[in-house]
Amino acid sequence: MNDTRRVYLDHAATTPMTDVAVEALTTQLREVGNASSLHAAGRRARRIVEESRETIAQALGCRPGEVVYTSGGTEADNLALKGLFWSRRAESPRRTRILASAVEHHAVLDPLLWLEEHEQAEVELVAVDGAGRLDVDALRAAVERDPDTVALITVMWANNEVGTLQPVADVVALAAEHGIPVHSDAVQAIGAVPVDFATSGVDALAVSGHKVGGPQGVGALVVRREVSLTPLLHGGGQERDVRSGTLDVPAIAGFAAAVEEAVKHQAEHAARLTVLRDRLVDTVLVEVPDAVLNGPDGADGNRLPGNAHLSFPGCEGDSLLMLLDARGIECSTGSACSAGVPQPSHVLLAMGRSEEEARSSLRFSLGHTSTETDVDALAAAIGACVERARAARA
Amino acid sequence: MNDTRRVYLDHAATTPMTDVAVEALTTQLREVGNASSLHAAGRRARRIVEESRETIAQALGCRPGEVVYTSGGTEADNLALKGLFWSRRAESPRRTRILASAVEHHAVLDPLLWLEEHEQAEVELVAVDGAGRLDVDALRAAVERDPDTVALITVMWANNEVGTLQPVADVVALAAEHGIPVHSDAVQAIGAVPVDFATSGVDALAVSGHKVGGPQGVGALVVRREVSLTPLLHGGGQERDVRSGTLDVPAIAGFAAAVEEAVKHQAEHAARLTVLRDRLVDTVLVEVPDAVLNGPDGADGNRLPGNAHLSFPGCEGDSLLMLLDARGIECSTGSACSAGVPQPSHVLLAMGRSEEEARSSLRFSLGHTSTETDVDALAAAIGACVERARAARA
Repeated sequence: MNDTRRVYLDHAATTPMTDVAVEALTTQLREVGNASSLHAAGRRARRIVEESRETIAQALGCRPGEVVYTSGGTEADNLALKGLFWSRRAESPRRTRILASAVEHHAVLDPLLWLEEHEQAEVELVAVDGAGRLDVDALRAAVERDPDTVALITVMWANNEVGTLQPVADVVALAAEHGIPVHSDAVQAIGAVPVDFATSGVDALAVSGHKVGGPQGVGALVVRREVSLTPLLHGGGQERDVRSGTLDVPAIAGFAAAVEEAVKHQAEHAARLTVLRDRLVDTVLVEVPDAVLNGPDGADGNRLPGNAHLSFPGCEGDSLLMLLDARGIECSTGSACSAGVPQPSHVLLAMGRSEEEARSSLRFSLGHTSTETDVDALAAAIGACVERARAARA
Repeated sequence: MNDTRRVYLDHAATTPMTDVAVEALTTQLREVGNASSLHAAGRRARRIVEESRETIAQALGCRPGEVVYTSGGTEADNLALKGLFWSRRAESPRRTRILASAVEHHAVLDPLLWLEEHEQAEVELVAVDGAGRLDVDALRAAVERDPDTVALITVMWANNEVGTLQPVADVVALAAEHGIPVHSDAVQAIGAVPVDFATSGVDALAVSGHKVGGPQGVGALVVRREVSLTPLLHGGGQERDVRSGTLDVPAIAGFAAAVEEAVKHQAEHAARLTVLRDRLVDTVLVEVPDAVLNGPDGADGNRLPGNAHLSFPGCEGDSLLMLLDARGIECSTGSACSAGVPQPSHVLLAMGRSEEEARSSLRFSLGHTSTETDVDALAAAIGACVERARAARA
């Protein structure tokens, strides 16, 4: 813990582990057992793994056999995209096109870029509207140009930067007309909005542990049993041969406990965060009247409840971030995963913003430990910080 | 913990976490921070990751920048093999051959099989002698047949089933004559025998956390900075773009603490286990006089100190394993990773044993919690168990 009280407004990057997840994990740390071993210690480890799988399946509305443990969301996305692409193309060499929303996370975009460069995939990024929502008509046009050549469609459940919920149901309906599999990165959505795998109709869904109050280094790809997937990691044949490697029993136990809790409390959590988030946006707009809220208005639940994303005209986002940080307030310029490399967000650009606007933005993301005090601390600091950031640039 | 005292003789499958590793990990569980975030919480997380990297580098004799964190040994092997193959072939399309010892772990063999089926690699498994040691002359002949077509050579540091130390120095010298990179799976070797990356001359080295007293779900590929490696996981650009995905800060802290401790105490640990192991082999041979020790004699340190691998003529290894398990003694028929699928060990077959001999074998592996009491418990039980296993088969 830090000496001074810090205000953590970056839950979308990673959120503190919940008590139940910490306890579930630490209980396992002193046990020994490889879940692939045949003896009693191995069988005990295997039991934890399988009970966790049932817990996760129950929470996400899938069958236990559809949960493939991975090292996190990034691996789950890579496995879904490369695995589906290779399998689908092996069935028919004409299937070389991949359709994706233009606002996907880098854990989706970067594998697609690699498939393009390394495996002759043709990746088409489909436009979004000004709020960051996929243009389903544009997707339809792209599919119908030549449906037989589409290997897969990938559309995130909710955007990690501006919080936009995507029209996954529409995408699934469209894809189903042509028998095209759909993958969805639901890393930001689990616990924030209702996500039910079976009802959604998607073929694959990426989930991350540390975004829902579980440990880092663990996640899952939920994938329909009927779907053929070429593995990324080969070895001992764990996870139905789809993902080899010794299973991380303590992390899996912590992950399952976190998912269960997050989904169980999703509705009340979302209601609480929506109020807090609206308060955050309102008070910031009072302090900085020319700030601009990016993404959906949030009015009809079209936005992740904990997400606020604002542009501060005349500011460099990075400078503003560091000024706030100096006052103990922690936020992000967008995705933590591309932090360190100051470049305008591809999400904001896809939404039609200028580079200047994109660079002047900050994301504030709330989570299970967030309080009114946090929001009020931001409101108290933002005006002065924006003033200094503007002065620094003038 | 179990009600009755269990005797755990399967440390090669996974070994209990050490106290320092548990403490290093649990200390981080209550902290929050994505190591890619720019704010104070992110920088704190990053500091843990980088200090851990320095600790690991110090212990393994490499530079910190050469440590690439992975989700474990299997991912490290997959990254090394596929990454090297793709990079080397991209430099010269003639480089399609991969030379490997015939006794590699499945985390090496299975990626090679995939490269053969999916990427037109030509994999050549090089013979070993009766003790499981690579035939360096055979490797030389394979290289010299057409050195320019060899993409890489992979030879494990020590065999996971029969404990044979491999002639890594000879392999490196041979490969260096032709500028061929060498990967070594050192998962079983770290903490058991001296391993110094720089001195060894290998280009890549796979390490696993849970085999050295660290957590499951974390490991590293140590890879020379000059080596070009195509990534397996694309995304946020972590780990110099070689391995994307949010870094697992608690697991990395626990991993570093375990590696440091294991390497620091390697010599005394090895001396203690050698005595215990010899006692185990001797007493089992007294109880079952026609049992056969597989692998090297261990006399001149040519074998992992904690490894004992024996065939029990007339027994099915699986039956014997379960009979011992019923008496509270936990061991393995070989690699835990291929357990569940009863097939004769490829290692034993490569050493010239019959399927019958291979199927009649058990591995007993000792570790940091092993005691004379464990060994004596095995000695007290093995005779009766072998008798019952033989009777069951008659």
